[in-house]
Amino acid sequence: MTTPSRRDLANAIRFLAIDAVQAANSGHPGMPMGMADIAEVLWNDFHRHNPGNPRWFNRDRFVLSNGHGSMLQYALLHLAGYDLPLDELKNFRQFDSKTPGHPENFMTPGIETTTGPLGQGFANAVGFALAEKLLAQRYNRPGFDIVDHRTWVLMGDGCLMEGISHEAASLAGTWGLGKLVAFWDDNNISIDGNTDGWFTDDTPARFEAYGWRVVRDVDGHDAASIKAAIDTALAHDDKPTLICCRTTIGFGSPNKAGKESSHGAPLGKDEIALTREALGWSHGDFDVPQPIRDAWSAREAGAKHEAQWQALFDGYSAKFPEQAAELLRRSHGELPEGFAAAADAYIAKLQADGPTIASRKASQMAIETFAPLLPELVGGSADLAHSNLTLWKGSKSVATDDPDANYVYYGVREFAMTAISNALALHGGFIPYDATFLVFSDYARNAVRMSALMHAHAIHVYTHDSIGLGEDGPTHQPVEHMASLRYIPNNDLWRPCDAVESAVAWRAAIERKDGPSCLVFSRQNLQHQSRSEAQVRDIARGGYVLKDADGTPDVILIATGSEVGLAMDAAAKLGGQVRVVSMPSTDVFDRQDAAYRESVLPKAVRKRVAIEAGTADYWRKYVGLDGAVVGMDGFGASAPAEKLFPHFGFTVDKVVEAAQSL
Amino acid sequence: MTTPSRRDLANAIRFLAIDAVQAANSGHPGMPMGMADIAEVLWNDFHRHNPGNPRWFNRDRFVLSNGHGSMLQYALLHLAGYDLPLDELKNFRQFDSKTPGHPENFMTPGIETTTGPLGQGFANAVGFALAEKLLAQRYNRPGFDIVDHRTWVLMGDGCLMEGISHEAASLAGTWGLGKLVAFWDDNNISIDGNTDGWFTDDTPARFEAYGWRVVRDVDGHDAASIKAAIDTALAHDDKPTLICCRTTIGFGSPNKAGKESSHGAPLGKDEIALTREALGWSHGDFDVPQPIRDAWSAREAGAKHEAQWQALFDGYSAKFPEQAAELLRRSHGELPEGFAAAADAYIAKLQADGPTIASRKASQMAIETFAPLLPELVGGSADLAHSNLTLWKGSKSVATDDPDANYVYYGVREFAMTAISNALALHGGFIPYDATFLVFSDYARNAVRMSALMHAHAIHVYTHDSIGLGEDGPTHQPVEHMASLRYIPNNDLWRPCDAVESAVAWRAAIERKDGPSCLVFSRQNLQHQSRSEAQVRDIARGGYVLKDADGTPDVILIATGSEVGLAMDAAAKLGGQVRVVSMPSTDVFDRQDAAYRESVLPKAVRKRVAIEAGTADYWRKYVGLDGAVVGMDGFGASAPAEKLFPHFGFTVDKVVEAAQSL
Repeated sequence: MTTPSRRDLANAIRFLAIDAVQAANSGHPGMPMGMADIAEVLWNDFHRHNPGNPRWFNRDRFVLSNGHGSMLQYALLHLAGYDLPLDELKNFRQFDSKTPGHPENFMTPGIETTTGPLGQGFANAVGFALAEKLLAQRYNRPGFDIVDHRTWVLMGDGCLMEGISHEAASLAGTWGLGKLVAFWDDNNISIDGNTDGWFTDDTPARFEAYGWRVVRDVDGHDAASIKAAIDTALAHDDKPTLICCRTTIGFGSPNKAGKESSHGAPLGKDEIALTREALGWSHGDFDVPQPIRDAWSAREAGAKHEAQWQALFDGYSAKFPEQAAELLRRSHGELPEGFAAAADAYIAKLQADGPTIASRKASQMAIETFAPLLPELVGGSADLAHSNLTLWKGSKSVATDDPDANYVYYGVREFAMTAISNALALHGGFIPYDATFLVFSDYARNAVRMSALMHAHAIHVYTHDSIGLGEDGPTHQPVEHMASLRYIPNNDLWRPCDAVESAVAWRAAIERKDGPSCLVFSRQNLQHQSRSEAQVRDIARGGYVLKDADGTPDVILIATGSEVGLAMDAAAKLGGQVRVVSMPSTDVFDRQDAAYRESVLPKAVRKRVAIEAGTADYWRKYVGLDGAVVGMDGFGASAPAEKLFPHFGFTVDKVVEAAQSL
Repeated sequence: MTTPSRRDLANAIRFLAIDAVQAANSGHPGMPMGMADIAEVLWNDFHRHNPGNPRWFNRDRFVLSNGHGSMLQYALLHLAGYDLPLDELKNFRQFDSKTPGHPENFMTPGIETTTGPLGQGFANAVGFALAEKLLAQRYNRPGFDIVDHRTWVLMGDGCLMEGISHEAASLAGTWGLGKLVAFWDDNNISIDGNTDGWFTDDTPARFEAYGWRVVRDVDGHDAASIKAAIDTALAHDDKPTLICCRTTIGFGSPNKAGKESSHGAPLGKDEIALTREALGWSHGDFDVPQPIRDAWSAREAGAKHEAQWQALFDGYSAKFPEQAAELLRRSHGELPEGFAAAADAYIAKLQADGPTIASRKASQMAIETFAPLLPELVGGSADLAHSNLTLWKGSKSVATDDPDANYVYYGVREFAMTAISNALALHGGFIPYDATFLVFSDYARNAVRMSALMHAHAIHVYTHDSIGLGEDGPTHQPVEHMASLRYIPNNDLWRPCDAVESAVAWRAAIERKDGPSCLVFSRQNLQHQSRSEAQVRDIARGGYVLKDADGTPDVILIATGSEVGLAMDAAAKLGGQVRVVSMPSTDVFDRQDAAYRESVLPKAVRKRVAIEAGTADYWRKYVGLDGAVVGMDGFGASAPAEKLFPHFGFTVDKVVEAAQSL
């Protein structure tokens, strides 16, 4: 073989994908075959990364929003020289391989974000580009563009049909994210067939309406056209760019190209043979000739990129040691020295002061206290800043080029907001928080799940946590939301009962590195609770004895949030041997050792009453079949909160009655 | 007072809204004040309805997508002459009033759909317009346009920021819903303030990209401009129309107009006085002078509209008796005679035939059996028709003008799909079903909640119900979804264990009129189970004894779906007194009388094991603290299903072990 052509290079992707899908007997060959030429030009001529160090901080970010085409990405990583050997590709979609069905950020070097749920990868890309913008405007200095990387995202028709594409594209346009380049795989095919019947948008015009630069009519199988389009995108950096690439799904397959049959199933041995012939690829299964491998390898170039950047950064460190140290600390996900002590002091002071306030207000006070210590804390709300109370004195809009910009006015876009949070967390250098009413976590739900799956250190603030919000009625009153969010694996939900627990919850969310936290706050005032130092310390264990009986309790009342005060009043009325357990985070409590859990909820005590203004059944895991739950079984109603609580049974008498019925 | 001016008429809305919000001391006056002029022209000059009969079948549908402005709609209904007396307006946002904080379709005559969660009302409107189109093309005959009504929808900036607005607008454009007219309240203000920082879309260009007709630059406070815009919309009916109305939020308030301070709080007594002065409204609180009331009343005109239509329909009935009868039946939500018997026969035959197939395949067979009897059954899928198996022999795309059109290619738009389903159900004349993978119910989650809140007879089909889907991995494998959907009040989830239970579930969903059902099906084959006639009958009770012990059981195994076969095998291996309960619908089972529930799960038997490839903790409500659960605690993984089930503990041995550990 002489010097390989660009088409040869692209075909290496195609056949790795074809062969891996065939070996797995499952997967999606059509997209990698269709986008191979685009990916080849992008990776070989433009993408700046270092396969030898997938975590190099200033690397370009590459996102495959149409994640079902995962073999495209695995082929790219393998060929470029990441630690993803051929055996992994042969093990595509097998248990514990580094090549799962969809790209997983926690399994494979070089995967920035997990994709597959359509549209979210695109929103992640917007978040990556925002991260770059914010770090650049804070840390760069003349001659020292130490933060300077692009975000590339590939997406299909499916991503563009999803609503989140609208939310994310609109924000990217508003923010003028000039280093974001999106490639639309315009192949006119989705799973149900030719998209003429269900996807008739004028997508270029739509993106221009968002303020994007649009490069139309690019032949996605012609390297020169692709290169020219990317050059156009890079010529200015005032706007994000959409490159519209006409492609053929399953390119090269004589009988399946351009058809949905190439989308989600192996081509089959016969068709693979025909495709090899049609594309002139005479090599065996998984065989990529060395000249092609050599042309693909990015190890040397990548090492050079990083070395050049390191030299720049060393110069920067010498000149701006404080900034460099802060950026390094942030990029490593380390909290500043002194954070823990400051948090301790704040929490102790709150316990002493004993304010009776809404927990959303307590949340804002916690932000006000912690945010000045944490330039990495970037907040926002889906158009509810003054209800969620997410603004603090130092808040500055990210729509500006202020070096301290740290607040995102997301508009009414809960889903993109959460996906962008995820990306800020995954990019490194940020602890993002986002916010909406608890009931509207529904709009963002799959992105919350993705936070948890991806181990993203994101904080989701949800206020107006129950019927306590009152007059807005059942559309705005969460019922099942707390239980449902707790059931998302690796997601920690906190529902604090007063200002002290609110501060502890915020601290836990900030200190938790391997997953998201949902912080759930009340609209209405919550009574301060007295605590010993030991009790204050135990809040962080998720559940603790707030009021104890002398000796073994007869009855245990378990409550969260606004119902803790109710439990305390009921305990007082009940008299006798009653224990009250405050359980701000069942997720965290369940992770405590057995001895601690037994000390809070002794197995022998079966008279248990759980009280929460949310789904009653959730609490059966603590009260079993012998206990009682004062909770919600149906939707709320529109009325002042002080009418609703008694109507739905949240009174001292009802709790007392429940306890006495056991 | 002489003949009232149009402004006087609009001011009646404004002051009813202002006074009601002030009396409630909560609510949103800014939007009704801003959109009063638009609503006045629309209702007095165009909207065809009958206040004396809010359920008149051929009425225009009016949707307030920005539902926080509910007082606009209550004022309109009151003034037009619906059964909504002034006392109800004075009771705005109070317990059990007909004027809750957001419009609720089940509380107030004339409210077509519950709104408040932004963007969904707009998607509902698209669904209403689709309903009209489908009924018209099936039933209308030359000279007999018996189905011929418009859908009007008001929406704000918030609705347009939401992703669902993209999905719904795109579909409306593709379908050319010419009788749909949307009014954009372009006031540049959302809750966080002036939208310049977060909403910079060129919305008119965006809607043109979807194939809408756009009327730009309408002065939303000038009746003549508004009227001209609507006339333009009605001049052609090939495309939906967006009318862009520049308005001032809080119009008329000297100090709060144009500001977010008028959005979500009472104006306050002083500002109200100033507003009365500024708008020349000298009447007292809640006082609307008779001449204004007279000008507003639509009772006479409405009765005339309906009478004219009735005459037309009578003529139609004479000429096309079968079609008329079918339409009436459908409009009353009645199933055809013979449906129950046909269902009985089909289910009995299935039990006898005993196919071992995937339940998604069994679902398709049920559709194939029931759909020919039910022209009201309109299905669809979010681009997964061949995976969800939602197509049947008679499926015809709604994008055509075929009289039998009954299938919606929704594209990858789960949220709009579900909101459109809700509207088809609320419109009357349809039993809609929609479909996606179970995990992507997340994308549609709040619309599923809205189905349940609104008592919408919608059927949500969710296939690929567990790790059983295999290689696509954790992004595609539901874990917490079944539990989370069951927790939505008034939502019935079914997870059948074989083809027979699948057919019963479909039948239950079709026969259930007062709320939605989620039908959850497997990708993989499920073993047929033997049953007596009594057992077949009891499937409909949600849970029943599939295999009993002699006498009181020692252990009860409770399972659903793919885990029922596992439970049966484990029971065989355990030997002794083991009962197996199949529990396809916990929601339905929980509604059975206490005696039946006791007969299935006797209180005295505490050795219980629940088995489900979903959130383990959910099952504590049946097994308590003394039982065991074989379920999921974390995310799934990418591998063939036959590797995943044993890996996650779904084996006969593990179930036996769990039972023996008790």
